[in-house]
Amino acid sequence: MMQKEQWQGFAGRLWKEEINLRDFIQNNYVPYEGDASFLAGPTESTNQLWEKLQELQKEERAKGGVLDMDTEIVSTLTSHKPGYISEELKDKEAVVGLQTDKPLKRAFMPFGGIKMAEDACKTYGYTPNPDFHKIFTEYHTTHNQGVFDAYTPEMKKARHNKIITGLPDTYGRGRIVGDYRRVALYGIDLLMEMKKEDLTNCGYGSMRDSVIRQREELSMQLRALQGMKDMAAGYGFDISEPASNAKEAAQWLYFGYLAAIKTQNGAAMSVGRISTFLDIYIQRDMQKGILTESEAQELIDHMTMKFRMVKFARIPSYNQLFSGDPVWATLEVGGLGQDGRSMVTKTDYRFLHTLENMGPSPEPNLTVLYSERLPENFKDYAAYISIETSSIQYENDDVMRPIWGDDYSICCCVSATQTGKEMQFFGARANLAKCLLYAINGGIDEKSKEQVGPDYRPISSEYLDYDEVMKKYDKMMDWLAGLYVNILNLIQYMHDKYYYESALMALIDTDVRRTFATGIAGFSHVVDSLSAIKYAKVKTIRDENGLVVDYETIGDFPKYGNDDDRADDIAVWLLQTFMKKLKKHHTYRDSEPTTSILTITSNVVYGKATGALPDGRKAGAPLAPGANPSYGAEQNGLLASLNSVAKLPYEWALDGISNTQTINPDAIGHSEEERIQNLVHIMDGYFKQGAHHLNVNVFGVEKLIDAMEHPEKEEYANFTIRVSGYAVKFIDLTREQQLDVIARTCHTTV
Amino acid sequence: MMQKEQWQGFAGRLWKEEINLRDFIQNNYVPYEGDASFLAGPTESTNQLWEKLQELQKEERAKGGVLDMDTEIVSTLTSHKPGYISEELKDKEAVVGLQTDKPLKRAFMPFGGIKMAEDACKTYGYTPNPDFHKIFTEYHTTHNQGVFDAYTPEMKKARHNKIITGLPDTYGRGRIVGDYRRVALYGIDLLMEMKKEDLTNCGYGSMRDSVIRQREELSMQLRALQGMKDMAAGYGFDISEPASNAKEAAQWLYFGYLAAIKTQNGAAMSVGRISTFLDIYIQRDMQKGILTESEAQELIDHMTMKFRMVKFARIPSYNQLFSGDPVWATLEVGGLGQDGRSMVTKTDYRFLHTLENMGPSPEPNLTVLYSERLPENFKDYAAYISIETSSIQYENDDVMRPIWGDDYSICCCVSATQTGKEMQFFGARANLAKCLLYAINGGIDEKSKEQVGPDYRPISSEYLDYDEVMKKYDKMMDWLAGLYVNILNLIQYMHDKYYYESALMALIDTDVRRTFATGIAGFSHVVDSLSAIKYAKVKTIRDENGLVVDYETIGDFPKYGNDDDRADDIAVWLLQTFMKKLKKHHTYRDSEPTTSILTITSNVVYGKATGALPDGRKAGAPLAPGANPSYGAEQNGLLASLNSVAKLPYEWALDGISNTQTINPDAIGHSEEERIQNLVHIMDGYFKQGAHHLNVNVFGVEKLIDAMEHPEKEEYANFTIRVSGYAVKFIDLTREQQLDVIARTCHTTV
Repeated sequence: MMQKEQWQGFAGRLWKEEINLRDFIQNNYVPYEGDASFLAGPTESTNQLWEKLQELQKEERAKGGVLDMDTEIVSTLTSHKPGYISEELKDKEAVVGLQTDKPLKRAFMPFGGIKMAEDACKTYGYTPNPDFHKIFTEYHTTHNQGVFDAYTPEMKKARHNKIITGLPDTYGRGRIVGDYRRVALYGIDLLMEMKKEDLTNCGYGSMRDSVIRQREELSMQLRALQGMKDMAAGYGFDISEPASNAKEAAQWLYFGYLAAIKTQNGAAMSVGRISTFLDIYIQRDMQKGILTESEAQELIDHMTMKFRMVKFARIPSYNQLFSGDPVWATLEVGGLGQDGRSMVTKTDYRFLHTLENMGPSPEPNLTVLYSERLPENFKDYAAYISIETSSIQYENDDVMRPIWGDDYSICCCVSATQTGKEMQFFGARANLAKCLLYAINGGIDEKSKEQVGPDYRPISSEYLDYDEVMKKYDKMMDWLAGLYVNILNLIQYMHDKYYYESALMALIDTDVRRTFATGIAGFSHVVDSLSAIKYAKVKTIRDENGLVVDYETIGDFPKYGNDDDRADDIAVWLLQTFMKKLKKHHTYRDSEPTTSILTITSNVVYGKATGALPDGRKAGAPLAPGANPSYGAEQNGLLASLNSVAKLPYEWALDGISNTQTINPDAIGHSEEERIQNLVHIMDGYFKQGAHHLNVNVFGVEKLIDAMEHPEKEEYANFTIRVSGYAVKFIDLTREQQLDVIARTCHTTV
Repeated sequence: MMQKEQWQGFAGRLWKEEINLRDFIQNNYVPYEGDASFLAGPTESTNQLWEKLQELQKEERAKGGVLDMDTEIVSTLTSHKPGYISEELKDKEAVVGLQTDKPLKRAFMPFGGIKMAEDACKTYGYTPNPDFHKIFTEYHTTHNQGVFDAYTPEMKKARHNKIITGLPDTYGRGRIVGDYRRVALYGIDLLMEMKKEDLTNCGYGSMRDSVIRQREELSMQLRALQGMKDMAAGYGFDISEPASNAKEAAQWLYFGYLAAIKTQNGAAMSVGRISTFLDIYIQRDMQKGILTESEAQELIDHMTMKFRMVKFARIPSYNQLFSGDPVWATLEVGGLGQDGRSMVTKTDYRFLHTLENMGPSPEPNLTVLYSERLPENFKDYAAYISIETSSIQYENDDVMRPIWGDDYSICCCVSATQTGKEMQFFGARANLAKCLLYAINGGIDEKSKEQVGPDYRPISSEYLDYDEVMKKYDKMMDWLAGLYVNILNLIQYMHDKYYYESALMALIDTDVRRTFATGIAGFSHVVDSLSAIKYAKVKTIRDENGLVVDYETIGDFPKYGNDDDRADDIAVWLLQTFMKKLKKHHTYRDSEPTTSILTITSNVVYGKATGALPDGRKAGAPLAPGANPSYGAEQNGLLASLNSVAKLPYEWALDGISNTQTINPDAIGHSEEERIQNLVHIMDGYFKQGAHHLNVNVFGVEKLIDAMEHPEKEEYANFTIRVSGYAVKFIDLTREQQLDVIARTCHTTV
């Protein structure tokens, strides 16, 4: 059994015999059932730093979205000298560490793709050192180069025509959550010892490709751990040993996360489930009398400030997909343990409270792991924060816990992953709405007129026959699922080869579980279109070449989002059918295929690329986001809509089912008290049915319209809303996306 | 069927329907049965260029072995501007192209290992640009880094203790022969078209790791082909189209080879079987009346001059292994076709004749593919060249042809490989003599006293019992074979990953046959030691810890090299047993395991690392080279020695069985005529028995001793001898190796 003086006062054995954060947490945390009255306001330091940071953010926005960029340094763990929010205030930072040497300065990260890195610079008027171009084309192959070397023409065509979209083939795949708590609990030296032992044992001398690959990865992980020590030493900290108090725990943990964001520019760079863990250290310090509530809150506030500052250099097409510069620094609070105890601690409150102390903010992407059985006080406080800030999301701990246990993290928008035991091969999504159009048109793309899918016989009748469409759709989905899995296989292979996440994987078990995360776009439109074909009369409108380019739908039909089984059954069928087709194929490193119904803000871009559909959606109009019902389809109020979404079985979409709803404050009550109670009731009812996720916005459309038209108003500077998969400052969205948000159903009745 | 105007006058169909050099050659070559009287002497240009080159070589030797080195350019296909032997004489070069911008200037090649590249520079007083250190450690992983990341401690120990040796883990593995003739016959554009088609078909959309890897490799090959065009364009040649005459054919072919040596620093960078191919072009030009014999010879002389100039930057430890700066630019002449016709052409003579026109030289490593059925005139001429220059080697075409067909090349010293259809995973050798000592000492190394092998029970008796030793040896060889194969698996994996030979593989079929070439060192000593244990009395002499460190052998015993089946049967048993053990294991990319009995000059270094043996060899003394009998073991003259070696079945050592013999001129005749006839007789007899290889030296020991003591004498400047696996200028050997060569049996009787 390992023994460390820094562990004095901590109970339990197993976590001392192996790396086991869950065991440490379960043995040491103190659930908190009380209310929010203990919380402390911001300290003077917090106010000063936050003010400084807001100035910088304002400057950043004024400069077109980017404050500063590296052009001479390739970002590695130790490439930059220490950076602080402000040189004058640096002694006030309770938690230190920046991605580069200056706040909000974006690092140069070419390993995913040199062209992307260069274009990102050029977009904002910066010119990277031309040597890097030579180095990352002639000497070192980038992930992007590797992928394009292996792509087939069919794959490039499918990507270009956007039937498969959001592929991480030019930057980091992200979605891997290192268990950053390990740095605090064990210190780097112990972690290195464990990884060295793994390296010793790996393969037992039998050098199959899989063993060789893993051995090399372990060596890279060991170098990354050493790099973390060196990086921390630059800031004056020795993280070889475990953290000895709450301040060190927060700092050590943050250094682990900083290592990740210095070396990877993944779309999602999540923080993970850290609140209950940190609370144990805070609790111990408070018992020792060496930490006050105000100091504890300051620690969480300053750490959160760091998460609010994470930035990557992005290209315009990326910003179109993911508007508002999100990084998915997702961080969870709440949840229950396997033993039935609530895992809510005072630090779960403290993290939510940052939205009060420093105002609303899109990052970190705060996520409440919800259960009806959470303490009422906590549910109320979370609902209160939702109503006040529209900045947090909810996920159903009761459906996730049986699958992922009680120490999972959310690794992007909504996807659960076992912390420190799992990694994900992320790969965005297939546009199933477009696939339906391919089925009808025999594989010809309705926008580009190219033959993209296989040239099966198209539908030639004037009116669509349900059975014929279903048969053809089944076959076209078969093609799409196969192509999609194979594209992802090669992307993940190249990412491992050229852009391996050694700093993140160093904080994850060597014997890691790997999921293969696919996704679905256009979900509600397929459901409603199939329903239209089945229950109404759909007439095809063809162009001069006989290609169906529009539909005229005569008569009414049931729509997804109204708690009508006729439509909702099609929704369940669609999810299960696509998932079954994905599972037919070999997946890279024998990973477990999963799927999601979430689109993030990319629903607008996807919609642009998708022709008209039988459900009445016009060509180019945005798709509904995630698993949301289509615009205007919901006719029976919020609860009916929620009931429809809740029917989708989470077990078939383990990567997540995203649902975003906006409720007019008046619809849920006339007083704060009433609103809180009603919101909690709505969520209890929704999640009890097995629903997975809910983004909660509480405001009226008028506010959105005013913010769109008067972004300069001070009150809108930090006005944050939940969009599919993340939170965003409304004024940072493109106008196109603002209009999309405004067009969405804002429920005025429950 | 492809049609090209440059092919006018060439017969055959198949080679126009696919890439098929063999079909082209078989349909077009004209066998030559006449004698050497047609040969032309050197032209004035040849003399001028060769004189210039000799000056440079003298300068190089005076500067300690290296004339100049690159420190600012990483060698790629297009990294250097054109280079010539001499700016003044550049119009006289019938074949142009240098590895760098200057003759004998060594390129900087860090992809195999940055440390090796830097050390090579530093050894000769050069300092590489420090940026390269950062680039090839922080940004790009080298082959060497990859290998050491994956090595197990056991592997490092086995390597360090030299029971497994000569591993290509710090530089290019070499041994791959691109089919450089393809550039001449087809031109780059057609080759690119074919590779593009392969890329299209590869994997048929199913992205398994093996498919992804191959698709990426094909893309790299396509870039390399484009790079060759660009490189040639730098010299003013457009090689997109086929060569239209002999001069272009030689030039195009050489550009193909130049691409290989600009991008890879493999231990062996062989040229391949090109003489019969080039003869077809020369023949056509002569028939057209546009080429004279003198011009034809000049072309071959100038091309050969280029092969004599190939150089790589090496480190001292490498030079110890392979003394005299060899590169194995191996080039074959002779051989028979599958149809029984001799493949000897006038150009086969012309290549041998370069040793007369420009004097002896170690490179290109000229190899006669021998058969009793070769034209007598050609056999006589080759024997004459051997007697005059001791610069060529012989390999048995009659044992190789049934296995490799009639278009194989020798890919290093003696190893056959199907030209353009095969590649080799090269991996040096296991020291089976040391393994015998490990068997006796329970896995403890007799030199370092470390536990290197498994700690099986050692032999504790005073006298060695044959059955006990054999049982333990079998078990220890099992361990060694497994470890060896696994080491090679990981080395080959990393080489493919970080130092893939795209320029060479671009000139080889995509659907390539892969052999996995292992090797044996210490062969004769194991045979004789086992014979001593079996037929004499071997007493162990132990150190203070009971470790056996020496042996006293009482009584006589049969020795390998005397045509005595009692010893020779052990030799066959040893080869077959080790090969069977290798075959038990998975080999990288499902390659076919082969083995060799050849040691090159490394027998001296290997011997240094090996303790005393029961056959009477003292600790540290050189091992016998290759499959040669041990020093002093041969008691019954040359023929008996040859007969012993000839018993080793080639089918069990497909990577080659190297035998080096030195004959005193007086032993084979008193006139040139008599010597030629006798040497041919000896070879006919030797090879008819199924022997594989013979290095023939014809000189007396006195000459060697004089050359060692008076290296400054003009007559020794180009004095070349055959050592195990290559030819070398005797004065370029280390003194240690000169002494070893001198100590070898020089047969004074047949």
